[in-house]
Amino acid sequence: MKNDGTMVNAYVPGKGNLSEADQALVARRRAALGPAYRLFYETPVHLVRGEGVWLYDADGNAYLDTYNNVASVGHCHPHVVAATARQSAVFASHTRYLHDTVLDYAERLLATFPADLSHVMFTCTGSEANDLAYRIARAHTGGTGIIVTENAYHGVTYAIAGMSPSLGEGVPLGEHVRTIPAPDPARMAGDLGAAFAAAVQAAIDDLLRHGIKPAALIVDTIFSSDGVFEGPAGFLQPAVQAIRAAGGLFIADEVQPGFGRTGDAMWGFQRHGLIPDMVSLGKPMGNGYPVAGLVMRPDVIEAFGSKARYFNTFGGNAVAAATAMAVLDVVQGEGLQENARVVGAYFAEGLRALAKDHDALGPLRAAGLFLGQDIVQGGDPLAPDAARTSRIVNGLRQARVLISATGPRQNVLKIRPPLVFSKANVDHFLTAFEAVLKQG
Amino acid sequence: MKNDGTMVNAYVPGKGNLSEADQALVARRRAALGPAYRLFYETPVHLVRGEGVWLYDADGNAYLDTYNNVASVGHCHPHVVAATARQSAVFASHTRYLHDTVLDYAERLLATFPADLSHVMFTCTGSEANDLAYRIARAHTGGTGIIVTENAYHGVTYAIAGMSPSLGEGVPLGEHVRTIPAPDPARMAGDLGAAFAAAVQAAIDDLLRHGIKPAALIVDTIFSSDGVFEGPAGFLQPAVQAIRAAGGLFIADEVQPGFGRTGDAMWGFQRHGLIPDMVSLGKPMGNGYPVAGLVMRPDVIEAFGSKARYFNTFGGNAVAAATAMAVLDVVQGEGLQENARVVGAYFAEGLRALAKDHDALGPLRAAGLFLGQDIVQGGDPLAPDAARTSRIVNGLRQARVLISATGPRQNVLKIRPPLVFSKANVDHFLTAFEAVLKQG
Repeated sequence: MKNDGTMVNAYVPGKGNLSEADQALVARRRAALGPAYRLFYETPVHLVRGEGVWLYDADGNAYLDTYNNVASVGHCHPHVVAATARQSAVFASHTRYLHDTVLDYAERLLATFPADLSHVMFTCTGSEANDLAYRIARAHTGGTGIIVTENAYHGVTYAIAGMSPSLGEGVPLGEHVRTIPAPDPARMAGDLGAAFAAAVQAAIDDLLRHGIKPAALIVDTIFSSDGVFEGPAGFLQPAVQAIRAAGGLFIADEVQPGFGRTGDAMWGFQRHGLIPDMVSLGKPMGNGYPVAGLVMRPDVIEAFGSKARYFNTFGGNAVAAATAMAVLDVVQGEGLQENARVVGAYFAEGLRALAKDHDALGPLRAAGLFLGQDIVQGGDPLAPDAARTSRIVNGLRQARVLISATGPRQNVLKIRPPLVFSKANVDHFLTAFEAVLKQG
Repeated sequence: MKNDGTMVNAYVPGKGNLSEADQALVARRRAALGPAYRLFYETPVHLVRGEGVWLYDADGNAYLDTYNNVASVGHCHPHVVAATARQSAVFASHTRYLHDTVLDYAERLLATFPADLSHVMFTCTGSEANDLAYRIARAHTGGTGIIVTENAYHGVTYAIAGMSPSLGEGVPLGEHVRTIPAPDPARMAGDLGAAFAAAVQAAIDDLLRHGIKPAALIVDTIFSSDGVFEGPAGFLQPAVQAIRAAGGLFIADEVQPGFGRTGDAMWGFQRHGLIPDMVSLGKPMGNGYPVAGLVMRPDVIEAFGSKARYFNTFGGNAVAAATAMAVLDVVQGEGLQENARVVGAYFAEGLRALAKDHDALGPLRAAGLFLGQDIVQGGDPLAPDAARTSRIVNGLRQARVLISATGPRQNVLKIRPPLVFSKANVDHFLTAFEAVLKQG
């Protein structure tokens, strides 16, 4: 499938229905930030404030946030804001001096992982975490080959953009990168685990045929940009066996599913009953503060650690650690994983009920508060309707409910709200969604 | 010169004179963070608090910070801390919604650059900024070849580590990367500008001979990890002409010299009377908050922008922008560039006076509050003394003055304090330095 690089749900300059003030902001953006930045929506939203699951525009209108996973414990959560402010005022320095905060956080974070995964390294972004994983995988395996799904997104550094096909054909993949079909139950024949593993094996064979030793299979364990594929539980195991048998590592990209979002566990890979060799973390880790990391088995980092040092000026600084600690406080203290499970199930139930009356609603995938709802033509699960999807996303935006779309066919509603989302918020969403569906 | 990757001024586990409590912290670090992390000093410092130019250990002892450029406006500056806290409590979201803060900051930042450099893109780290510069340079030039100095450091992503020879031979350089000697007036014969340009031209010729089209010459405009080479003013011009004549770009890495540190200008490249094609920014930009960026001429980003989009989840978020704005407030409001010029000159004068009595003090390079003091044997400027350098750095640490060393011969004292450093702080440093020098 061709991907010309057009972003799903991107604002097209000159279109939309912007106020004069917002047109001026768009012009200032273009002048100052240049041509590579994108806005969401036919008519972009001008936001000034956030609180919990709500975002507010410059006129004071409230928008229900059903999309932003970064503000995972709610926009501007007071406990997190206070931790950032308190630590910023006391000490903000880096990991080449001894300080306690980064260790307290590291140990608490590692306690949420299986015991084998006992080292963590800190970066500022998920892109940096995946980039570091790639460096470590090369050092450990002696290989360079990378296998990713065909609409994967793993980040924006040069190396990682080269293994992020969702960025489009304007961004070349590395010559050591192979893509495989996403584990889409509607499109992959036979047993999903066996079929996905066979695709991994074919990619391994092709790498070897070109003289390239495999280094890693890396997947977002919920396959977000591929269209959100959460299961069935355990289907990833044969693929992981295949890459390990070829001497490569399995890297779980938990930047999107991690920190309790999938409801059944803290980390997306846990649903599959396996232990990755490395796990990358990001977006919700600091609820907006730039902090990310990479968790690994000790033997995986030995080769890298024996010949290279790693220093990230801001990675693991005291404020990042204090902020991330406060996020864990809230995730655990407010029971947000359980909330994701319960409210996510309620959300899925509501969408399935709505689907009975609306044949535009095709297959639904859901794991906690990460849902992918296909929009299709005439009830045919294999007839994607990108145009309708766009109308829905923009219709909801007009109704002040924020959401976006994803997938290689641009027809998957990506529902990924802050984890403090309530059943009442779900009802609010469903009411608005039904009204938009009735508009056609 | 071989570089086995041993970090200058790194703690060697098992050595030093640590308290039991600090030994326990070191053990926790090794267990949680793994083998790739490094601490400073024979006996690492355990820090808990910072204020202005002072850092405090767990026992309440004060250390004069003569090294950390990140906390450029002073550790925990209240104006910056307040801006972070205020914006964190209100809105922290990203650049796919319209919001004012990032534009207000972008415009104010761009106003400090020559008019030709009119776009800025935001990242979280200097590594990400240089990595983005590399992607843009490839798209603009159609080339891939990169030229750096032989002990350069530009960052830690896969692509940028591959053009950072100071990381040591355990970290392979890219096959499209060529290194050239640093512009060391003591070691480069003849006119420095002509000699440096000749080295660039030789690297261009070698790239072309291997079928590699040059993409860029990238230099830290103060050549920090090469040993701090600040001048003479203008010597970079012929090298820049050479890379441009070969179809490549000139990228100024201002992560270390930028934001007023060199005293004579806001940006290090300005001393050389030239306008780079791209300028990367980082460390002091948010005084510890993870924010960085890349400034460029609009035509340079056209090719990249026509086929790729750029999104950095935390890059240019509202808190990053508000924090960076507060840093600019202080740099400009407290006259820190002028302070760097005046206090830096006083510092250099003090070091030169001390050199009259201590033949260990070899050549000194100084630009504002960025100073490189060679430590040599018997007054011979070409006889580096790495062992003495290490004794000085660790002697000063025992005297509670923080500093480090750099350079391919590990004999350059790297003096790079917060820009709020005063003449009294210089006197404090010089008194401690003289006492340590007398110890031999």
